[in-house]
Amino acid sequence: MSETFDTRPPRRPDPQRICGLNAVRALFIRRPEQVLRLHYLAERRQVAGPLCRYLARHHRAYRQVLEDELARIAGTEHHGGIVAIAEPRRALPLPSPPPPLLFAGPLLPVLDGIGNPHNLGAIARGAAFFGAKAMLLSGDARQADLSDAAFRTSEGALEHLTVFRAEDLPSALRRLQGRLLIVGAAASGGVPPEAIPRTKPIALVMGAEETGLSAPILAACEARVTLPGSGLVESLNVAAATAVLMHALGSRSSP
Amino acid sequence: MSETFDTRPPRRPDPQRICGLNAVRALFIRRPEQVLRLHYLAERRQVAGPLCRYLARHHRAYRQVLEDELARIAGTEHHGGIVAIAEPRRALPLPSPPPPLLFAGPLLPVLDGIGNPHNLGAIARGAAFFGAKAMLLSGDARQADLSDAAFRTSEGALEHLTVFRAEDLPSALRRLQGRLLIVGAAASGGVPPEAIPRTKPIALVMGAEETGLSAPILAACEARVTLPGSGLVESLNVAAATAVLMHALGSRSSP
Repeated sequence: MSETFDTRPPRRPDPQRICGLNAVRALFIRRPEQVLRLHYLAERRQVAGPLCRYLARHHRAYRQVLEDELARIAGTEHHGGIVAIAEPRRALPLPSPPPPLLFAGPLLPVLDGIGNPHNLGAIARGAAFFGAKAMLLSGDARQADLSDAAFRTSEGALEHLTVFRAEDLPSALRRLQGRLLIVGAAASGGVPPEAIPRTKPIALVMGAEETGLSAPILAACEARVTLPGSGLVESLNVAAATAVLMHALGSRSSP
Repeated sequence: MSETFDTRPPRRPDPQRICGLNAVRALFIRRPEQVLRLHYLAERRQVAGPLCRYLARHHRAYRQVLEDELARIAGTEHHGGIVAIAEPRRALPLPSPPPPLLFAGPLLPVLDGIGNPHNLGAIARGAAFFGAKAMLLSGDARQADLSDAAFRTSEGALEHLTVFRAEDLPSALRRLQGRLLIVGAAASGGVPPEAIPRTKPIALVMGAEETGLSAPILAACEARVTLPGSGLVESLNVAAATAVLMHALGSRSSP
């Protein structure tokens, strides 16, 4: 029995690869204890120096490597010359009652079914730029979670955001009403950003690029916003649309 | 001599591959005479139908193919199930005097040294969405020109924009003063968008992601605009920043 019965502990999730100077720096600022090791090219030796000294003090590894080894470690050629291996981080289940962080920024981006991790990362970059403190992801099976590609594209922004996941997003949005104005972004049929009242922080709900927001999500929204366009192209990329809406809705914030 | 002397005409530039339904549709609307042939998956047969009938009438080829053949033809797996092969199109040398198209939209995006073709395509998508009619590229060696990747990312928007290139951008910008307000986007030190006067259409000059605008370009700008951010991340992606600025500057247009 001892030979066939698997007594190993449950397999730990794989570490994540955090690529690029901005993402690695933000990682060391926000959760240095989760860095497992660091790899970098000769041209990054100087910026890697203080990070290596931190790792040395805490008995963790760092190593200068050649271009093709770094690409292999990173799993991509877009590694920006520096790659940290870190404890994996995923979106946290949304606690009940909702944590104060959800109401701390002028806007809370809410993503429903956005499957492309580059879009998730780009949205996070815009969110942190415009002062958001958190993001909320839906339980939609298509929705991307935190991943190597999302961290890379966010340029460190994901380290500054607490990311939650709500399996039942319509119910979660209804629980947030009162504290947040729930605004769904629609390709057509909504009001322009300047018509959205600004009496409290806004939860800005963005749907999948191809299908938009589902009926149950739209039913949980208190307003719909649409960016007026020329009509020549159908829509903006979802990350660009989120940035434009965050600026248009958030810059006039007076909570 | 006849065997070693090359009497062939100069080699024609390679055709371009226009991938994805939106890009292919816009191509057939704006320059159908430049389509050489069309390839598509079975799942795109219905939308390809009218395009194939056009090509049949003009004695050009079309063919339904399998997934891996389409990826080979497209040179990418992100082909969206349909790929047109078209006469190559590049940015046009900026004529003198400047053509009226430059002044036709609320904004003219001007790109200096933006080398990533995906950023070029994404900026074009935002520009067409917000009503621009043209774009102007600098002669900077890093600046991306129209390419397969740019057409794909623009989702058809590049077909709605006339794209010019000015080898000497600072001189070109000075010639445009008077008809356009020349506004350079800077990561810091500029005024917020609402402080930019709106007496005429705006040329919005965007620099390379890593280095920003060069001194000679900045010297040719009449104003500098900066998006106020939280400071947690250094900047937005250049395509997102362009979209935010175009909305903030263009939506209040009253030329």
